[in-house]
Amino acid sequence: MTVGLIAGALTSMAAVPQLLRTLRTRHVRDISVWQPLLLFAGVFLWIVYGFLIDDVPLILANLIPLVCNGWLAVLKFRYRCNDEMPADRATA
Amino acid sequence: MTVGLIAGALTSMAAVPQLLRTLRTRHVRDISVWQPLLLFAGVFLWIVYGFLIDDVPLILANLIPLVCNGWLAVLKFRYRCNDEMPADRATA
Repeated sequence: MTVGLIAGALTSMAAVPQLLRTLRTRHVRDISVWQPLLLFAGVFLWIVYGFLIDDVPLILANLIPLVCNGWLAVLKFRYRCNDEMPADRATA
Repeated sequence: MTVGLIAGALTSMAAVPQLLRTLRTRHVRDISVWQPLLLFAGVFLWIVYGFLIDDVPLILANLIPLVCNGWLAVLKFRYRCNDEMPADRATA
């Protein structure tokens, strides 16, 4: 049970550092838009499934990745032209 | 049930396009290493949890993201110096 909770917490929070990095650097060249789009669609359906089977933890656990991945997909489009500038923020 | 299966398929496959893009471009500047690391740790624990509760679909569904995210974390380190080159592959 504890293992499952830790696993859920880790996979739920995984997109947060990527979102923070993207908001900070405003560079998205190396990010595939399909990862946030697929995760957004996937966790959206997990939330739908959570409602269907009345599972509140499943719904709550997927809200954070829903927001993060939706936001990342938007940023991928918004910042797509930023890499025509010199790669001045190319810190690893 | 079908909704849950589609949700699982989408979240399982989400890292595949990112891995393919990174293998193709060899650029990782805009990727936070924490996303693949957290997902790797998370899906590893999901697999452990799957063994604990004897849930074969849970184990199988997490094998693809385990491989993809582990591989992505390795690539983030391997290609971290590639962005000292001109950004000649900076296609959006």
